Amino acid sequence: MATDGAGMRTDTLKIALLGCGTVGAEVARRLDAHGPELTARAGAQLELAGIAVRDPSRRRTGLDPALFTADGAALVGRPDVEIVIELIGGIEPARSLLLAAMARGASVVTANKALLATHGPQLYEAAEKHGVDLYFEASVAGAIPLLRPLRESLAGDRIRRMLGIVNGTTNFILTRMDETGADFATALAEATALGYAEADPTADVAGHDAAAKAAILASLAFHTRIRVGDVYREGITAVSADDVASARDMGNVIKMLAICELSADEQAVSVRVHPAMIPRTHPLAGVREAFNAVFVEADAAGQLMFYGRGAGGAPTASAVLGDIVAVARHRVGQGRGVGESAYAQLAIRSIGECVTHYYVHLDVTDKAGVLAQVAAVFAANGVSISTVRQDGHGAEASLVIVTHSATEAALAATVENLRGIDAVREISSVLRVER
Amino acid sequence: MATDGAGMRTDTLKIALLGCGTVGAEVARRLDAHGPELTARAGAQLELAGIAVRDPSRRRTGLDPALFTADGAALVGRPDVEIVIELIGGIEPARSLLLAAMARGASVVTANKALLATHGPQLYEAAEKHGVDLYFEASVAGAIPLLRPLRESLAGDRIRRMLGIVNGTTNFILTRMDETGADFATALAEATALGYAEADPTADVAGHDAAAKAAILASLAFHTRIRVGDVYREGITAVSADDVASARDMGNVIKMLAICELSADEQAVSVRVHPAMIPRTHPLAGVREAFNAVFVEADAAGQLMFYGRGAGGAPTASAVLGDIVAVARHRVGQGRGVGESAYAQLAIRSIGECVTHYYVHLDVTDKAGVLAQVAAVFAANGVSISTVRQDGHGAEASLVIVTHSATEAALAATVENLRGIDAVREISSVLRVER
Repeated sequence: MATDGAGMRTDTLKIALLGCGTVGAEVARRLDAHGPELTARAGAQLELAGIAVRDPSRRRTGLDPALFTADGAALVGRPDVEIVIELIGGIEPARSLLLAAMARGASVVTANKALLATHGPQLYEAAEKHGVDLYFEASVAGAIPLLRPLRESLAGDRIRRMLGIVNGTTNFILTRMDETGADFATALAEATALGYAEADPTADVAGHDAAAKAAILASLAFHTRIRVGDVYREGITAVSADDVASARDMGNVIKMLAICELSADEQAVSVRVHPAMIPRTHPLAGVREAFNAVFVEADAAGQLMFYGRGAGGAPTASAVLGDIVAVARHRVGQGRGVGESAYAQLAIRSIGECVTHYYVHLDVTDKAGVLAQVAAVFAANGVSISTVRQDGHGAEASLVIVTHSATEAALAATVENLRGIDAVREISSVLRVER
Repeated sequence: MATDGAGMRTDTLKIALLGCGTVGAEVARRLDAHGPELTARAGAQLELAGIAVRDPSRRRTGLDPALFTADGAALVGRPDVEIVIELIGGIEPARSLLLAAMARGASVVTANKALLATHGPQLYEAAEKHGVDLYFEASVAGAIPLLRPLRESLAGDRIRRMLGIVNGTTNFILTRMDETGADFATALAEATALGYAEADPTADVAGHDAAAKAAILASLAFHTRIRVGDVYREGITAVSADDVASARDMGNVIKMLAICELSADEQAVSVRVHPAMIPRTHPLAGVREAFNAVFVEADAAGQLMFYGRGAGGAPTASAVLGDIVAVARHRVGQGRGVGESAYAQLAIRSIGECVTHYYVHLDVTDKAGVLAQVAAVFAANGVSISTVRQDGHGAEASLVIVTHSATEAALAATVENLRGIDAVREISSVLRVER
């Protein structure tokens, strides 16, 4: 490669793009349209050398047909390609192509959360071994600059806890339920009609998508290898219109949260994804519709929040382009960015050991002594009650109990014991309450 | 310096600290307390080589008295010191010490917004010339990771506009006025009593502090050298309890904003600091008390917001430590981070050319034809009216007008002409309304 007298590269830096869906096409278009600006920022001209897709014969508006190829392996293997952008998604062939690219010294950028959440350690190690960059800002919370601040800006701080709204579909559904009083099915139907939910919404509403993102976030924040299988997960399908109304009565709102927490003794982390009540005064409560946000509590920095669009072609392309520029700058400077680290190697706490507050909604027979019986069960399991609200209606009553902090195991035992009380007709809801 | 076989440094990296006030002491304490963690993140052991202060004989709890010196120049000149942290504040001797440090090849970290907003270009050029890092995350919005995302994460995007709450004192005062109905003087007194405002609050309430931060933000976002003198500035001292109440009636809230905007033709930027109304549904409206936040609108990323503590010893120390780790990593890798760039060299638009919406509150004589006269003045100056609200009380009436977008020059001419109407008794308020 040509360099000027000062060792700065004066030539072009070639980029291979794998995948040309919504995000890929947007990245390709912007690389072309913003050429001079990107060159000024990267310190070298960025040239798209090729785009690997399943069907290269398909016309893509505004993109040179000569760029397309069906042979991703050959494109990745080209010795003149220095940066490989993976936007195919899924595990294979994405993983093999990224490993092949890194093995021959190319830097890589990916938005593939599923791949990182399952094979992250293998990829991080490959990047380290071959001395190349592996960047993946777009994999969590789309356009929001989040991973770089976590691993760079907060490098001198200690993260205690992260609460993230990292799935736009579930946030849209819960926002609608909160605003209109709709039940889950109605809100989901609206999300589907508006394009916020996929035809098969399982990955979103069951929390798989959020769990993958939580694994990536927790790995970075706690310098520990955390895979998606380490993440406790509950979806939002069981959240009822009644739960949403109860939350509102209590000055709370229900959000689907990805929670990554350092234990009090700093020896373990817990990572969980589930619906939870948070106070309406919490900064996350105002994150509405399909927006994402991650709230961070750090030792020195205190409370931080990062807010923005978590999905969509242009927002995701913004994050990918930011990574491309960063990686290009490193290659121009013959350096390398900060790699992943797992030096802390903290233990991963099981869900039973997690400590939080709980909201328990019981339907009981309205007769003397029921509250005493219920309260005794909580006490026997060491779960301290913070507030109780009893509403009678005829022969029945509803009992809403919010606890002080307790372990999940203690709460589970409490719920199990409550089922054994005759006067408890139904445990209609159990939700976590985060502060 | 020692290196292992792979060229990685295995020894320590020496740091000089200039200034040991609240932030400096916190940085020194954390460098000591979090040694192993910082070493793992930086890739080298970080050692505090000395602390320059005015009075080295003063005891500082938890810090080795042998570290202290009154001779900042000698400390900065030590050939074994590779990173210099400037936390003295003010222009001199901070500027000379930073220039001396960079000239002999040390990298520097500073939190000095006043220095950057006035002599930034000279410092950026020195860093470039000597091939060292100049990092200053703590200079704007304290702990919030903001500058690094702007110059790195969004490097592949184009920022259109930034609206920032970057001064905690004024945000605290305006939050109190909004919540309690207090007037400015009462809210300021409370801020002073609680330590949120200094004995002489001028730098905060007149907008000097916010203007310096706006200059730094705009320089980064628009790749153009912008100094504090280029920033239009109005303080919050004229904001009345009536204005706050009117804003509330309109579903708005008044915030002190730093606004950095790219013109529609992308040839110019405007940078201004003043109180403005924003809708209560805007994410910035929920930023309360002394918190800071910066709302960013970018081409591809869309809307982003960064939220957190803008001041305080520990939060500011978090940002400084993040910079120290970044700079240390670059030295370990024998590289250098992204420098500042001014390649865009955009023109700076005068306040008269700025375009926004306005709220105009008039006290008028309540007689026939006044509204027609007033409306004619707006029309004659090409300022289109969006909403009018007239409230009569006896012989007088108040007229609240909100305009469509118009230039500041057109609005100023309108106000000037309104003063010439006999029936206009007083123009009690003119405020900008941001969308």
